[in-house]
Amino acid sequence: IHMSDVSLASMELGPYAHFMQKEIHEQPKALTDTIEALIDDNRFSPVLFGDAASEIFSQVDSILILAAGTSYYAALTAKYWLESIAKIPTNVEIASEYRYRQSVPNPRQLIVTISQSGETLDTMEALKHAKSLGQHYSLSICNVQESAIPRASKLVFYTRAGAEIGVASTKAFTTQLVALFTLAATLAKQRGMLNDAQEQGYLTALRQLGGSVQHALNLEPQIREWAKAFADKHHALFLGRGIHYPIALEGALKLKEISYIHAEAYPAGELKHGPLALVDSDMPVVVIAPNDTLLEKVKSNMQEVKARGGELFVFADDDSHFAESECVHVIRTPRHVGVLSPILHTIPVQLLAYHVALIKGTDVDKPRNLAKSVTVE
Amino acid sequence: IHMSDVSLASMELGPYAHFMQKEIHEQPKALTDTIEALIDDNRFSPVLFGDAASEIFSQVDSILILAAGTSYYAALTAKYWLESIAKIPTNVEIASEYRYRQSVPNPRQLIVTISQSGETLDTMEALKHAKSLGQHYSLSICNVQESAIPRASKLVFYTRAGAEIGVASTKAFTTQLVALFTLAATLAKQRGMLNDAQEQGYLTALRQLGGSVQHALNLEPQIREWAKAFADKHHALFLGRGIHYPIALEGALKLKEISYIHAEAYPAGELKHGPLALVDSDMPVVVIAPNDTLLEKVKSNMQEVKARGGELFVFADDDSHFAESECVHVIRTPRHVGVLSPILHTIPVQLLAYHVALIKGTDVDKPRNLAKSVTVE
Repeated sequence: IHMSDVSLASMELGPYAHFMQKEIHEQPKALTDTIEALIDDNRFSPVLFGDAASEIFSQVDSILILAAGTSYYAALTAKYWLESIAKIPTNVEIASEYRYRQSVPNPRQLIVTISQSGETLDTMEALKHAKSLGQHYSLSICNVQESAIPRASKLVFYTRAGAEIGVASTKAFTTQLVALFTLAATLAKQRGMLNDAQEQGYLTALRQLGGSVQHALNLEPQIREWAKAFADKHHALFLGRGIHYPIALEGALKLKEISYIHAEAYPAGELKHGPLALVDSDMPVVVIAPNDTLLEKVKSNMQEVKARGGELFVFADDDSHFAESECVHVIRTPRHVGVLSPILHTIPVQLLAYHVALIKGTDVDKPRNLAKSVTVE
Repeated sequence: IHMSDVSLASMELGPYAHFMQKEIHEQPKALTDTIEALIDDNRFSPVLFGDAASEIFSQVDSILILAAGTSYYAALTAKYWLESIAKIPTNVEIASEYRYRQSVPNPRQLIVTISQSGETLDTMEALKHAKSLGQHYSLSICNVQESAIPRASKLVFYTRAGAEIGVASTKAFTTQLVALFTLAATLAKQRGMLNDAQEQGYLTALRQLGGSVQHALNLEPQIREWAKAFADKHHALFLGRGIHYPIALEGALKLKEISYIHAEAYPAGELKHGPLALVDSDMPVVVIAPNDTLLEKVKSNMQEVKARGGELFVFADDDSHFAESECVHVIRTPRHVGVLSPILHTIPVQLLAYHVALIKGTDVDKPRNLAKSVTVE
């Protein structure tokens, strides 16, 4: 039943070496498919989330997102959108933590769960826990039709990523992000926080997203070169700020999962509160920095470790004025996508992890010790 | 001015090899000094936080804690206490993130800042940002009298840790934790969530805390033995669940800061969503597990990595039924302290980091690249 809308063709590798590579390259289509109804409709309408959405959205005063793994990082990104665009207070919690702790229930809070498979045990149990506390407004963001979590939820938004075979999630993550952005814009509109011009601006950005992501995919040859600098390392540090911090987390997780390199992410401002002590020539530092200001600050933090060979690898915007030097390598992402920037900046960190794993010769699609759907505790 | 209440004696090492070791061992006294007024009073009274506290506490509907580094982990611990004991919705945010993002201000929210020095730039700027948004209820938890952050706050609770010289915070952290627990219990009482028997129970636990911490300090010889297993490693994973997850974060940070071992913490339930791929004989796994159930789950997650030499180092409760084996080492913390358990379990992870650093011969009190008070961005 769960595979009903997956064509056999999508299960074949075609010209790709791994499902992960194929799925990375399928993202322009996966993203476009996921927002097709929205684009056809030319407006952010609650009905995208279900018939009861308009009524439920009008009741909620805040949002709690529950998720695990990569989906948790999608949730962290959404917090920035939901608070800045829809002005709705948003909390994000790891499902396995929420289900075991005493929280303060709020019946007017919308519980949003995110799970690619719709069967993640901790997320399902967290949803049940929320309901047991009287939290009845629930929305599932899920990639598999009629799986357990959407069936247990009042509202649902299905991402249309198609079957994801690689254990390390790629197109499921970016389609979750467009679903969550759509939620933020839809709530903003219903709450009177989005005028017509802004709505059309967001719709235009979404329409162009597939093309923008294709431009990012075209960076693959440059990123393949960078991968050589990581393949013999045992550590890496990923830094981001604000809405790009969760993308740093996701980049570190991908590298961990498939290349077995101990990569860790920090919000850039925390660098000097501890992790800076670790940085030397064995620990390359990746910065997701569409913003020059952040980069200047990180660069000044890094000055003192330059002597020990600390190297920066920076994903910057096209119009960034940031200069390369011996210890600072820059790849420019070719197009501005404004508020959708975290989606665009996910592509290069996926490609980096993939190419490092290729050099290392790991089992890219089935990394050791990990399962695709985590249906146990 | 800032050092006015620090006696010269406290600046001397005495029998200790480093200020960090001295400060770890000063914790029974630092904790007892910090709660002295509370113990004398024999009740949780708002006046401990300032004359205006009773009035302000009666107005607030939620809490936002802003902090950086170790203080941020104290804040994460406090969220569990504030929500479970005082039933007050609590958010925690990294100061450098909060100050640069668009959030949804709530004038009835109490802004709590935590900074040992009271001069941490990001935390000060975050407080200013909150005020600029109309958030005027502020409480500073600080170790230095009359420093910038308490001066800019309506309420203040001074920890009485004495001067902390070691860059890696130890006694400042645990005294911040008792301050935050006191806040939770005080709010609970004022909100009618704490009956007299519970209040006396908490006061008894606080009175006994110094003694309990001394028992934990007495584990030093066993922990010194464990340190030998970490000194030649480049990685470590720290796991905890619930209120002990922030202690896992703090344990990993200490090891990073002074031993330059790349230690990372995860909430135990997230192990199977990624980091499990990293675990092998080069990455010891430390578990803060006063609870047998958590430990059984982690142990079952670890089964599959046993073949590759994955080793568990567990800090368990005295009455834990968990058995040691070739790959599972257990140190039992000698006393139950109930809800104060995170404070007690901080001691062994501090000692572990200290003894690993000693073996490695690093500059324990002044780790490379780090400053005591981070007064720059």
